[in-house]
Amino acid sequence: MDQPTKAMMAAAATTSEGNESPALRRLRLLSLHLYQPSVVSSGGSELAVVPCSSGRGRGRKVEASGPELAAYLRGQHHEIQLRVFDFFRSRPDLQTPVEISTADHRELCMRQLVALVRDAGIRPLRYVLDDPSVYFAVIEAAGGIDVSLGIKLGVQYSLWGGSVLNLGTKKHKDKYFDGIDNLDYPGCFAMTELHHGSNVQGLQTTATFDPVTDEFVIDTPNDGAIKWWIGNAAVHGKFATVFARLILPLQGKGGDSADMGVHAFIVPIRDLNSHSVLPGIEIHDCGHKVGLNGVDNGALRFRSLRIPRDNLLNRFGDVSRDGKYTSSLPTINKRFAATLGELVGGRVALAYSSVGILKIAVTIAVRYSLLRQQFGPPKEPEVAILDYQSQQHKLMPMLASAYAFHFATLHLVDKYSEMKKAHDDAVVSDVHSLSAGLKAYVTSYTAKSISTCREACGGHGYAAVNRFGILRNDHDIFQTFEGDNTVLLQQVAADLLKQYREKFQGGTLAVTWNYLRDSMASYLSQSNPVTARWEGTDHLRNPSFQLDAFRYRTSRLLQSVAMRLQKHSQTLGGFGAWNRCLNHLLTLAESHIESVILAKFIEAVQSCPDKKTKDVLKLVCDLYALDRIWNDIGTYRNVDYVAPNKAKAIHKLTEYLSFQVRGVARELVDAFDLPDFVTRAPIGMPSEAYSHYTQYIGF
Amino acid sequence: MDQPTKAMMAAAATTSEGNESPALRRLRLLSLHLYQPSVVSSGGSELAVVPCSSGRGRGRKVEASGPELAAYLRGQHHEIQLRVFDFFRSRPDLQTPVEISTADHRELCMRQLVALVRDAGIRPLRYVLDDPSVYFAVIEAAGGIDVSLGIKLGVQYSLWGGSVLNLGTKKHKDKYFDGIDNLDYPGCFAMTELHHGSNVQGLQTTATFDPVTDEFVIDTPNDGAIKWWIGNAAVHGKFATVFARLILPLQGKGGDSADMGVHAFIVPIRDLNSHSVLPGIEIHDCGHKVGLNGVDNGALRFRSLRIPRDNLLNRFGDVSRDGKYTSSLPTINKRFAATLGELVGGRVALAYSSVGILKIAVTIAVRYSLLRQQFGPPKEPEVAILDYQSQQHKLMPMLASAYAFHFATLHLVDKYSEMKKAHDDAVVSDVHSLSAGLKAYVTSYTAKSISTCREACGGHGYAAVNRFGILRNDHDIFQTFEGDNTVLLQQVAADLLKQYREKFQGGTLAVTWNYLRDSMASYLSQSNPVTARWEGTDHLRNPSFQLDAFRYRTSRLLQSVAMRLQKHSQTLGGFGAWNRCLNHLLTLAESHIESVILAKFIEAVQSCPDKKTKDVLKLVCDLYALDRIWNDIGTYRNVDYVAPNKAKAIHKLTEYLSFQVRGVARELVDAFDLPDFVTRAPIGMPSEAYSHYTQYIGF
Repeated sequence: MDQPTKAMMAAAATTSEGNESPALRRLRLLSLHLYQPSVVSSGGSELAVVPCSSGRGRGRKVEASGPELAAYLRGQHHEIQLRVFDFFRSRPDLQTPVEISTADHRELCMRQLVALVRDAGIRPLRYVLDDPSVYFAVIEAAGGIDVSLGIKLGVQYSLWGGSVLNLGTKKHKDKYFDGIDNLDYPGCFAMTELHHGSNVQGLQTTATFDPVTDEFVIDTPNDGAIKWWIGNAAVHGKFATVFARLILPLQGKGGDSADMGVHAFIVPIRDLNSHSVLPGIEIHDCGHKVGLNGVDNGALRFRSLRIPRDNLLNRFGDVSRDGKYTSSLPTINKRFAATLGELVGGRVALAYSSVGILKIAVTIAVRYSLLRQQFGPPKEPEVAILDYQSQQHKLMPMLASAYAFHFATLHLVDKYSEMKKAHDDAVVSDVHSLSAGLKAYVTSYTAKSISTCREACGGHGYAAVNRFGILRNDHDIFQTFEGDNTVLLQQVAADLLKQYREKFQGGTLAVTWNYLRDSMASYLSQSNPVTARWEGTDHLRNPSFQLDAFRYRTSRLLQSVAMRLQKHSQTLGGFGAWNRCLNHLLTLAESHIESVILAKFIEAVQSCPDKKTKDVLKLVCDLYALDRIWNDIGTYRNVDYVAPNKAKAIHKLTEYLSFQVRGVARELVDAFDLPDFVTRAPIGMPSEAYSHYTQYIGF
Repeated sequence: MDQPTKAMMAAAATTSEGNESPALRRLRLLSLHLYQPSVVSSGGSELAVVPCSSGRGRGRKVEASGPELAAYLRGQHHEIQLRVFDFFRSRPDLQTPVEISTADHRELCMRQLVALVRDAGIRPLRYVLDDPSVYFAVIEAAGGIDVSLGIKLGVQYSLWGGSVLNLGTKKHKDKYFDGIDNLDYPGCFAMTELHHGSNVQGLQTTATFDPVTDEFVIDTPNDGAIKWWIGNAAVHGKFATVFARLILPLQGKGGDSADMGVHAFIVPIRDLNSHSVLPGIEIHDCGHKVGLNGVDNGALRFRSLRIPRDNLLNRFGDVSRDGKYTSSLPTINKRFAATLGELVGGRVALAYSSVGILKIAVTIAVRYSLLRQQFGPPKEPEVAILDYQSQQHKLMPMLASAYAFHFATLHLVDKYSEMKKAHDDAVVSDVHSLSAGLKAYVTSYTAKSISTCREACGGHGYAAVNRFGILRNDHDIFQTFEGDNTVLLQQVAADLLKQYREKFQGGTLAVTWNYLRDSMASYLSQSNPVTARWEGTDHLRNPSFQLDAFRYRTSRLLQSVAMRLQKHSQTLGGFGAWNRCLNHLLTLAESHIESVILAKFIEAVQSCPDKKTKDVLKLVCDLYALDRIWNDIGTYRNVDYVAPNKAKAIHKLTEYLSFQVRGVARELVDAFDLPDFVTRAPIGMPSEAYSHYTQYIGF
């Protein structure tokens, strides 16, 4: 039975066997089907002494305690999350089935939301106002129940509720707060149009003031201006915050109408009692989506729909009874910027929830990879697939990234809460750029990772009950809504260029980019041919080396793109130059965000009070850092920041760290503290996973 | 309206503006929401003279003719594909809706298959026997109608039908051929068990010969041996080819039972008339899957089920009336290898169909990216998003890859047909390794690309009707079934190591790896410090340089992994060494497959008779080659095969080629010749896409 294996290993080791006959050769090739070489194992924990990566430090076993890790990871709002989980655990009637029609899912999702608010007593709009970090914790927990529920909650409270709170004034809050909070007033956020998503200033819907009746008249001037993808619109919404160009008759040049730019208006769309669609509005169902089918997205067309003047959300600009415009902000662009600036919380929620989804996926994949055995050495038991170097390569850097993102997004939530309390402009700017960057980076990473998890779990990963498909489909759009990732990264790059310019003019830097000030000068000088060759483990695992390498890359990319932009803008103009350097700018933004994430991770390691927990986190952090450096080794090699011997050492160490993290992988996922009720996948149960699985299908 | 833009560009170009006030700064940052810099455009074709990549060759416009390209691409079996498409176009009752329940989908899929066979007169089993290339064309076309239909067809004809034809003898063919062909006998291929997928030799189901009744008794000894994921089993199957260990009583040592290894048996599972499940079999439904829900997968448990001795598929091994085993092949492993070797056609079908799915996805994404406009220079029309360098970066190398894979998989189909006709052992071996490698490489690439397409098409890409979600979910498992990609790549690597060994013993090489013989010696010497610095466009676009670079990498990886394996096997044994080098081996296999694909693409370019078409293909081929080299530039830099100046030149040229391919992108996707009935996505229609979309949702 071990013959094919021997034949293959003989081939592999380039020994023995003379000229094979064609038949024998064919046979040997075919035999590769049967028996695949795998790690030598003497079973169980002894595997640790047969490392599947390169040598240094071999034998030094890292230990981890799940509960202590969990205690350190646990956010300050763990309790309210448990409250959400416990509530849904007690209500099996509210659990989303693995297969459910769009129509049923929408109704169920609404029932889940209503129950959460009215039965469990969770009042999200209160938290939005009083303590956003509690709100984010609730939204992440709701997403653990069903991602659709998290998003439906976000539509109602971040978008519809948030627009009323942040763009309106006291009269709006007095009138709508309770109805929004208790769900008597389900609402929508009608910004996106068929032809305009990212370019919000290109919106074409109009709101024309009629001084005769003291009303605004809302119109959809063409098909491209149909409001599209509006959550809550297809079925449940009774109101919508509609973004439209404010048109004031007679206020323009020569008595023409004046286009005052995009403003937000509260528009009732369905009758409060009968729930029938109001006159002047046509609503169609956007239909079945790739995921998130618990959320009912619709498309709205307005035909001379009239709303009272009071329905203008007038915090940043108002219209008087006689049709005159007033604002504390001087220009259309400034008002629009202020308007959109209030909505950054949605990105914070997405970045944070995306990490929650990544944790679920990686927990299921790691637990299954510990359970699943396939192939083995001759006459020995099969080995767990997580003992294959290839599986470690797929999952261990991902697990490390989940840890890295955890600390980075907690930091973002703190910053956001600080901003909401302090209204400090530097913090506002920091949160804006950080939320854009983390949202883009984390959601792109999670999206790819869920697919990797599915593939790493083979056929059983393809059963819908094992979650990867549903998580991937629901999460997919996180990359697009609340700011397309490619657009958001450009905002980060533009902000870095601004910082770069300020540096050379002696200005101050926002906190997040402080490293540029500290080290730019040394980074911009020649790289050091001596340190470029250092390859010792102590050096490579030194956070200073890691952070320097990340920041060197960012600085270098920043300097070079600034020069390129300057050069090209002379011939191509500003837009042409920007586009000519677009890939470069996106790389810069990603590089910067990676630096920020690493810095936060290193801080978290250093702040950890428990020695054992700290050691484990350090291991995970090193893997995060070195894996990223290795993935972009070409960049480092191109400028000789890293010599060939060092590149090789980084690669070897990365494989070795993956192997070491594998040794504590079970504890690392346990520390995410996800109840079985949330992970749910039969193959991802902490024990007896196969029997959960056979029971599920009826054996 | 253009103020934010100006402010940002000022920042970008590091000019003007002194110390901004914090308020102004915050505003400017927020304003990045509003206006995103983009390519300078004077509209339409003039964009071609505002390249968004670097300079060389600027102005030289490549032209393409869709129909001429299509004529060159078109396979020899285009007609039968059109027949399939025309049939389904004429039968709207058979069209799969965008949302459909699993139960309905399964029934619809069966009706589609029955109609294709009985109404359209397609006889797949005939093609399997007479001309496999026709069969692959049919399966690809069926997948264009609904991927589930392609797979359901494959289960019936490749797996169930193929096992009877290839593993059985005349008696089986006589008895089952017509029923399989005309679908009176829908059947299953019951190989995979709950605990064993990749490791087929670990299967535990038993078939014990009972000499008293002249029957085999099929048993499922434990839960892990439940047959799992069996297509056609949950609802439609009446038979199954069951893989089980053949146990012969009294034939072992000392009169014990002998385990003769895994054999295939025909097992009736449902009554031919009543369709009720037969006694001794328990069938459960594997339930909702991530995709392919038109195929009904089930799980089977056998309890002393008896089948006649004749039901052993006895081509490679037989049992006589008195319970004696006979075979033309001497060992269990050789018989098993022969058995599995017959089933390689499934991989050919998957690689081929995967390219078909990639073409659909890239066609929709490119057409939408030409239609969609977002942002633009101040006071000018918005530009098509395909004019952004970032969008070109996402989609143009993907389009080039679809072309590359097209030629490579056509070659594979030809080779497979040749193998079926000639039964030449060298060809068998070649097809085996090539199908494993291409299946793994192409399906992994397509899986990632569909996600990229969704993301590149933003919110509208998330509408289920626009296809990406359904294609991704259906295609996802292509990476796993018919051989897990990670396992298949190891087979390729092992085969390369075999070739490497033979080279040093003067043996002959299989055709596909001929390049190793031709160039290994020179590759294994030092890289050339002169050519490593050549950076001229003519050099970089020379197919010799490109192919050399690909093959150099493969040779280098091969040589180094062989040395590492030899070294590690002394301390870790064969299995431990293999696992220690596993990532390395997988990289080697991918590198090799990329070389083979490039070689086939270059051949296709050189064989193209029409000058204009040839020029376009050359452009696409250059992009494929240089993008791959750039993606792995670290490897080339680490060994100084490419100097820093050359690396930079490759990067610039890759961006420029993406820009040039964008200029003919419409023609390149048109040349895939996909009827609107197959692409279907409203946003992917060749014209008036938005109106298709608004009509779809009811406006």
